Order: sequence, then C-alpha cells, then structure tokens
Amino acid sequence: MSCSTLSRADVDFLLFDWLQVESLTLRPRFSEHSRETLESALKVYEDIATRLFAPHNKKNDQHEPQFDGERVQVNAEVAEALAAFCETGLMAAIHDEEIGGMQLPYVVERAGFAFLTAANAGTSAYAFLTMANANLLLHHGSAGQAARYVQPMMNGRYFGTMCLSETNAGSSLADITTRAERQPDGRYRLFGSKMWISGGDHELAENIVHLVLAKVPDEQSRLRPGAGGISLFITPKYLVDPEGGRGERNDVSLAGLNHKMGYRGTTNCVLSFGEGRFKPEGAAGALGELVGEEGRGLSYMFHMMNEARIGVGLGAAAIGYTGYLHALEYARTRRQGRLPGERDPSKPPVRLIEHADVRRMLLAQKAYVEGGMALGLYTALLVDEAATAQSEAARGAAARLLDLLTPVTKSWPSQWCLAANDLAIQVHGGYGYTRDYNVEQFYRDNRLNAIHEGTHGIQAADLLGRKVGADGGAAMSILEARIEATVLKAQRSLVLSAHAAELRTAWHRIRETTERLAKIADPRLRLANAAVYLEAFGHVVVAWLWLDQSCAAERAAERDRGNNAQRGKLAACSYFFAWELPKIAAWTRVLDPVERTPIDLDETAF
Amino acid sequence: MSCSTLSRADVDFLLFDWLQVESLTLRPRFSEHSRETLESALKVYEDIATRLFAPHNKKNDQHEPQFDGERVQVNAEVAEALAAFCETGLMAAIHDEEIGGMQLPYVVERAGFAFLTAANAGTSAYAFLTMANANLLLHHGSAGQAARYVQPMMNGRYFGTMCLSETNAGSSLADITTRAERQPDGRYRLFGSKMWISGGDHELAENIVHLVLAKVPDEQSRLRPGAGGISLFITPKYLVDPEGGRGERNDVSLAGLNHKMGYRGTTNCVLSFGEGRFKPEGAAGALGELVGEEGRGLSYMFHMMNEARIGVGLGAAAIGYTGYLHALEYARTRRQGRLPGERDPSKPPVRLIEHADVRRMLLAQKAYVEGGMALGLYTALLVDEAATAQSEAARGAAARLLDLLTPVTKSWPSQWCLAANDLAIQVHGGYGYTRDYNVEQFYRDNRLNAIHEGTHGIQAADLLGRKVGADGGAAMSILEARIEATVLKAQRSLVLSAHAAELRTAWHRIRETTERLAKIADPRLRLANAAVYLEAFGHVVVAWLWLDQSCAAERAAERDRGNNAQRGKLAACSYFFAWELPKIAAWTRVLDPVERTPIDLDETAF
Repeated sequence: MSCSTLSRADVDFLLFDWLQVESLTLRPRFSEHSRETLESALKVYEDIATRLFAPHNKKNDQHEPQFDGERVQVNAEVAEALAAFCETGLMAAIHDEEIGGMQLPYVVERAGFAFLTAANAGTSAYAFLTMANANLLLHHGSAGQAARYVQPMMNGRYFGTMCLSETNAGSSLADITTRAERQPDGRYRLFGSKMWISGGDHELAENIVHLVLAKVPDEQSRLRPGAGGISLFITPKYLVDPEGGRGERNDVSLAGLNHKMGYRGTTNCVLSFGEGRFKPEGAAGALGELVGEEGRGLSYMFHMMNEARIGVGLGAAAIGYTGYLHALEYARTRRQGRLPGERDPSKPPVRLIEHADVRRMLLAQKAYVEGGMALGLYTALLVDEAATAQSEAARGAAARLLDLLTPVTKSWPSQWCLAANDLAIQVHGGYGYTRDYNVEQFYRDNRLNAIHEGTHGIQAADLLGRKVGADGGAAMSILEARIEATVLKAQRSLVLSAHAAELRTAWHRIRETTERLAKIADPRLRLANAAVYLEAFGHVVVAWLWLDQSCAAERAAERDRGNNAQRGKLAACSYFFAWELPKIAAWTRVLDPVERTPIDLDETAF
Repeated sequence: MSCSTLSRADVDFLLFDWLQVESLTLRPRFSEHSRETLESALKVYEDIATRLFAPHNKKNDQHEPQFDGERVQVNAEVAEALAAFCETGLMAAIHDEEIGGMQLPYVVERAGFAFLTAANAGTSAYAFLTMANANLLLHHGSAGQAARYVQPMMNGRYFGTMCLSETNAGSSLADITTRAERQPDGRYRLFGSKMWISGGDHELAENIVHLVLAKVPDEQSRLRPGAGGISLFITPKYLVDPEGGRGERNDVSLAGLNHKMGYRGTTNCVLSFGEGRFKPEGAAGALGELVGEEGRGLSYMFHMMNEARIGVGLGAAAIGYTGYLHALEYARTRRQGRLPGERDPSKPPVRLIEHADVRRMLLAQKAYVEGGMALGLYTALLVDEAATAQSEAARGAAARLLDLLTPVTKSWPSQWCLAANDLAIQVHGGYGYTRDYNVEQFYRDNRLNAIHEGTHGIQAADLLGRKVGADGGAAMSILEARIEATVLKAQRSLVLSAHAAELRTAWHRIRETTERLAKIADPRLRLANAAVYLEAFGHVVVAWLWLDQSCAAERAAERDRGNNAQRGKLAACSYFFAWELPKIAAWTRVLDPVERTPIDLDETAF
C-alpha cells in the first residue's frame, strides 16, 4: 500500500495555475521568494509527510497515548517526525525573517502543511497548535513574551496549546469558571479545570506553553458573567527562568486523557490548574502571565481561532483527499464483478473503476476534496491579501471576504470531505471496514472536524447571525462581485457557459434568501434553520470556486494542449454542477419561509 | 447513562395501531396468539435486551474477540446473553409448533429482535445468523438435515453461519473457487477459503453449522464459471455422530480474524476448508452434505439473503433508533449556551433541546429512525402476508411487493439511520466523539450495514436492474395502488392533505423516471446512476409510509384525544415532507436524462 497523501500536481495547479500565487513574490514581503523557492518549500513538506508522518499514522491510531499517572507516553515516531519538521524551520514558515522566519505566503504554508495532515492528522496537530499559539503571541503578546515563549516554540523546544473549553463550557465560552487571581508582582495564579486540550500533556518537548482563558475575580471575588470578563494567560507547564532555561514545575497537571473515536495520535486532555499538586514559588496556583489587557482574552483568541478554522477546513480537505487517493488506487487494481450485459462468466472480472457506480463514487470524492482544498486555499490567500495587498481597499475587501468565508471554509470540508471518506470506505467494500486498510481511520479522524473549533451549528450561527449582515452586507457584495466576475469569464467558454448561468441563478437564490431572513425580527426564528442556510451557502461558494478553477484549467489546457488532469478538473466541475448544486433548492425551501416544525414541536413529543 | 434501546411505545404503535398485526391472529397459523401473547413476546425481547444485551455492548467494542492460534475467546457476557435468549425459545419464534416453535408472526419477531440489535448489535448477530441458517435448512434441507442441524440450532446447542464470500469474490459470488469433491458415499469434501464469515469461529456453542457455497468440479476437474455452478453444503465444525452427539473435528479451521471499525462483538473470520489441519474420517477435506440439488446453491442462499436483507435494514434502524434516544436524553439534560437574543449572561444556560439547531437534529433523527423502523416492519409484514394471507391473489401481491421493497428496506436505513447516528454524535458535541459515551460506537457499528449482505451499489442494481421491471412492472403497479390508497386516506385529513398531493407528485416523478430508464437499451447506461435512483425511490417509499403512519396516528389521536407521541408522529412526518422529500428533485435530475460525466471520464483523468 503506497502512502498517497495529496496530489502534488493538483496542489501546484491550485496554487500556481489557479490562484497565481507566484504573483505574490512581486510584493515586498515575499520578494525574496520565487516560484522555485515556493516549490522547494512544498517539496520539503511533501517529503517529510511521506517519509516521516505517513508511516506511523496507523500506529498512532492503534497505540494511542497512554497516561501512567505520571507521564504521557506517545509513540516514539511522533517525536522523530516533529523534530524533523522543526529542523526544517517550517514551524516559523510565515514569520518575519528577523525573528528566524521564512516570510512564506500563508497560502503556500497551508498548502504545504496539508501534506502533513493528510499523512498523519494526529502527529501534525502538535505542530499546528504550536504554530497557532506562537502566532497569537506574536500578535498580542509583549516583546518579552515573544522572546520567552515564541522563540522556543519556533525552534521546536516548546510546544503550545489552547485552553478554552471546560467541562460545562464547550460551545459557550462565556460560562467558563477558571479563575485568575492577580498577584502582587503583576502575575496571576490560575485555578480551574480545562477540557478538550489537544496536546495538553506529553513529553515531546521541553515545555508546553498553555494559552488559557480565565476570569479575574472582582473585589468581591465574583467572576463577571459573560464573555466580557474573559482574559488570556500564558501558563507554561514549567516556569521559565530568567535565562530562558526550564524552571520549576508549574501547578498544571493532567487529570486524564480523553479517548476519542479518531484523531488518536493527538493527546486530548483534562488539565487541572492550581489544584496544588505542584507549588511553584512555594504556593498552589498555576502561575500565569496576562496576554495584552484584561477582559480582552476572547478577542485575542478569536484571532487565532479564525486561522485555526481555516486550518480545520484544510485539514478536513486533506484527510478527505488522501482517502480519495487510496480509493482511487484500490479501484484501479481490485478486480470484482462484470459489467451489466456481460453474459460470459468465464471472462475475467473487471477492475472496480470500470463499474459506473464506483466511478460515480470516485468522482463525487474528487469533487468534494478538490473543492474543499480550493476553498481552503482561496481563504488562506485572503489572509495574505488582507495583510499584503497593495491598496488599502484591496486589503479591506480581502479582510471582509475572509470574515464571511471563514465559517464556510471551516464547515464545508468538515461535512463533505468526511462524506468523501465515507465513500472511500464504500469503494473498498468489506475491506474498507477493516483496520487492515487505511480508509476507516481517515473517516474516524475526519469526524472530529465538524465538532472542534466551533461545531457546525456554531459556524452556521456565525455566518447567518453575524457575517452576512456585517457592515450592511459589505462582504456579501464583495463575494457577489467575485462570483459575477467568474460568471463573466465562464460565459466566454463553450464548455462552461451553462454552468455560469446556473451559478448566477443559485447565487441569486442565496441572496434573496439572505434578504428575506434579514427581515425577520425574532432572532430565534431568523436563526432557526441556520444550519441549512450554511449548507446552501457553502455549496454555492464551492460551485463558484469549481467554476473558477475550471476557467483556470481551460487556460492551462490551451497552454498544454490539454492533459488528463485538466479534463479531470472539468469533469469534477460538471459533476458538482449536475449532482450537487441542485441540492440547494431542497435546502433553501425550508428557509422561504422558515420551516417551523422543529422549533414548534413540544419538547415532550420528540 | 440509562440503557435506552428502542421505544416500546413506538413499536406498539407501529405494530398495533399502524400495521394492525392483531388481525393476523384471525388466521389459522397465528390462531393461538392474541394481542396479549404478542405483547408478552415483545416484553421478553425488551427485557433480555435491557438486562443482558445492553450492559456489555461497550465491552464488546473495547474487548473484541481474540484468537490465540487455537481458540477464539469472546467476552463471557456474550455467552450468557445468548444462553438466556435460547432459553426463552425465541430462537424458534417463527417456526412451527410441531418442531418446537411458537408460530409468532414474522413481523412481531423482527420487531422484538430489533430490541436486541439496538442493545447490542455484536452479540445479537450470532442469534441472527443462526436463525437465518435454520430457516434456510427448514426450507431447502432434508428432514434428516433438519433433525441433525436445525433442532440443535433452535435450542441453542449449535450456532450457524453463512459462508459465501471469498477473498476475491465478495460482491461477485459467481467467481468463487471453493471446490466440493463428491465422495463415494454421497457426501462431499470441501477445499477452499472463505472470507467475511461472521460468527465463523468461537466457543459459544457446542458446534457451528457452516452453510457453504462451493462448486463441484466436472470430470476434467474444472469448475463451471458463473453462478450456475454453485451448490450449497452443510459443513459443520464438528461432525455429528449418528446419535446427534459431537463427533470428530471437521477440516474447517480459522485462518484469522478480521478487525473491523465496528460491530466488534461479532467474530468475523477467514475460514480454511480442507487445508488438512484436521483429518475427519482419516483424510483431509472438510466433509459436507449437499443441501437440495447441485447447482442450485445460490437460489437457496438468496432465499435466506432476502430475509437477511430485511434484518440488516431493521438492524440499521434499531442502531439509529438507540442513538436517537441517547441524543434525546442528552439534549434534555445537558445545559449549554443561551438562546439568540438573550443578552443577560448571568441567566443560567438553557438545555440543548431548547436550541433550534439541536431540535432540527433531533427531529431529523426521529424522521429517519422511525421511518426506517416503519419500512422494516412493513416489509416484514409482507413476509407474513406472502405466506398466510387468505387469498392467493393477496399472497402473490405481497410476495411481489416484498421483492420490490427488499433492496430499499436493506439500503435506506443503512444510509439514513447511519446519518441519524452521525447527528447523535453532533448533538453530544465533543463528548459524542469520545468512547466514554455510546453514540460513536453506534455510528461505527451501523457503518457496516451499507456494506454487508450486498452493498448499496448491489441493492441499486437489484432494484433498477431486476425488481422494477419484473413481470412487466407488476410490483410497481401494486406499490402505486398502495401509495394511492394512502393518498386518498390522507386527503381526508386537514393536516395531511397537502402531503398527500406532494406524495402523489413525487411518486409520479419516480414512475416517469422508471419508464424513461426502461427505454434505454444499453444496460450499462441504464444502470449507470442506479444508486441515485435507489435514493430517490427510497425517499418516496419512506414518505409514503410516513404519511400512512400519520393517518394511523390521527386515528389513534381521535381515540386518545391526542397525546404527545401522536403529535410527534405528525411533526416527524411534516419534517420528512418539508426537509427530505424535496431532495428527490436533485436526485432524479441526474436520471432525466442519465447524467454521463462519471461514465464518460477517461480513467486516467480521475
């Protein structure tokens, strides 16, 4: 069984032919880069993914981290793979050269990192979290904090986590009860319990930098209700001494590991802060440093969270993608059955890929996973645009569109690239249901993505409740203009013009639905079917990007006189328009007007 | 965590209010029964399920069967639960009293058995397979075979299996290569390897009766290609001596266990026949007895398989159902977040069931699982009708409709009750993704059902390629008449008349699509999108049964002055018509005309 992670050829097509990221190298921030340096960075990711990440993916699943009451043991291969990754310097890929970074465009870094996730979601998560942590501190921490914590994370000595949820506060962070008590020296001591902490404990690094949401009690020792009372603290597993060496153990300890359906390579922890198991500087309480200002913790965390959501979406696409490649390889080699109408049983069986239904399942997977990758990379490029586009107007437009698309980018691949993994199992038949093959693990790993970093329901409420109406619908107008630009391009193509018309119609349906919903005064009714709005919205966005990809494939085909990859792109686009886009009629039907059955039913009648 | 298996109240509604199975007791075969005896049988199933099956469901998952090279060890609770089940006599529930059976209607037996599957799919499978095996032998075996093998299976001394697939012949049984060599005494010796044998080895019973498909070589030692050469053999693990005692070990041995994503409580085996590890009666080769005639093995097996497919569908519905009940209980107790528009963060969080999106997910589950149960029980009743209806015409009509609906009954719950399990995870959030809760196991267990006993693709080809056109479309006309009868009933209801019209329109769409497809001469093109035909067909059938159930709920509500369960039925029906039925437009669109993208794409362009 070969280790097919992602298609490098497709990633190259998406980055260079479609998104034309080479043009980013004309900008000052990326001026040291060229197509060659970008490609060689991708090569490094691909190489590490194949050589060091993929080979122990199944072992991570079958031998999950163990806690002996003292330490957490993970498979040795995890440390080796991560050490090799840190060694390349890619942990700091997007950061400034002056602090040891490479100033790689974010979109290229995300594309490269997708190889690691595709190869081994569990192992790659440690790096993902560490990078997100470092990025947050670079934006919102002090220079001293950057020196103390970010530098060692960028070179792999420290790893990082995000400690948001608690047992009774998952989706609803406003209800956290972890307390941060101000100390005379300006530091804080934290007391409380945190849940779902990925990478929360392990022996992979010298130290673990926890970024912890907590509330500072008022003078009556009360915690302020709601999100406004939340602050953010750096609370390392070991204190850092003035020379940057590892100091004494902080009062943070592992209360237990969660045992998950998938994604088992990543430890997922219940962490206790301040239970007095350790007494740093002589007292109970986990010592922490405030990041930025008190009361602004959630806004700092959301900066990180928005990028994490892009990461989740791309991760879901990557896991879906590797499943597709595995199914494709299996379908090309496994022989089973005969075609309808074949009456001669002495003829040899055909390969699975010759069966129409298997071809449908493969093309559906292709449409989902290449669509999901396109969505993730397009959104990642918006991060670069928002930061480095030449005009303020362009930066502003990119930032607005980024805000609008983030919930879609997080949720669409989490749903449809999971559906791809489901089809990959089905292509394998009974074998796909066994742990001897890889596809059932991909399914289990990917199932997490619709839950963490905000469930589907949270994303839907974010999209419909906040994003589409923000600034008087400014982001919607930007999206509409971009969709219309693609429609105009596609109208010039013989092959694509019909899709152009379908896309325009579908978008108008979304637009109308959005406007109709905006007029509903009762927020509970307006948001009641937000999840199905998210589905319809997501399908139109992905249809748009499929059409836009296809325009690029046609351009590339003129240059290359057409190759199979380009024909495949056009076919997957056609598939999406014929099989998927029509679903939006069924979805928007329950929004025009809002279908009330679920909300009206008496609770005892369920 | 309580052990919610199925809703007994809903099963009673389905059987007695909707399907009116009490009327079966007027027929000679069931004349010893009354509503009371049927209810007390259901009570026994429910009781055993709750007391003995449910408690070790998670243990089955976490401690799967182990093979030490000699024996297979399964959890002790499995044997205890099955012994208790055998003790009740329900292994022979549907069989004639004269051979120790209870002459219970099949539909009641299936409803009762669904409690066991909901409680513990892994453990219940041993009984399911044994009953299917016994049933086949009663229909197609000799009296001597019935005495030797069926009697000990009915009282639980022996268990049974079905040995169809081989490593290279899963969906395509025509390609099996297991040989059965005729012996001078009329018996056969079998040589070959069988794959995916559920319950293929264990120490739960004194003996295991394997029903094995194999080919008898011709005089040149060649196996006849195709399905026509297949015969069926009884090949027990231990020979049975003339007194019915356990004789010497037959040449059948376990080559290995398959390790599955779910359904782990059931051993799934690679079995070797005739490799010479044992030498029964002094020679290598597994001794077997022919069932019926040579060359007719597949037709006997299909008799069993058709009932197994109903069982798979009902099993999928049962697993979906228990997931729904778990999600409902969680949603009623877990507090998280506040409703949109609530600005006061000091108010306590609401229960999950108060959130509109959670209600949507619960109602979707309800619509899927109660719809799946209704479909399975309706089809099971057709088995009774085909055997015991008063007129030959009624029996014939039931048999035809049974044939038509079997692929739908197998596949629809395998898809949509799995979707229910997926939503049950989502309702639980992060907790649902952990093995501390039950819902992720339900998802993994249920994922098997779209694969075994014929994949979705096989069911789709069966429905469109054979069933809808059989006897000039006779079964389709019967179905149409029954749908129309429901439409006429529902038109008289203020609440349901709109749905009646929608159902009629949807059915016409299926009918037109079917007729259009029938005119396509090329079988490969005609069947190319059979899977999506199956989806659309299934949704219309389930919509019909939802409407029919709702008519019964309205009748019952008149009697009871309306209760919450009846209101819930009408709401789930409305949900299905508003949210689900419109999907058929998107599905049938790729059939009118047949959308060719998947079949036309060059293989190298995927």
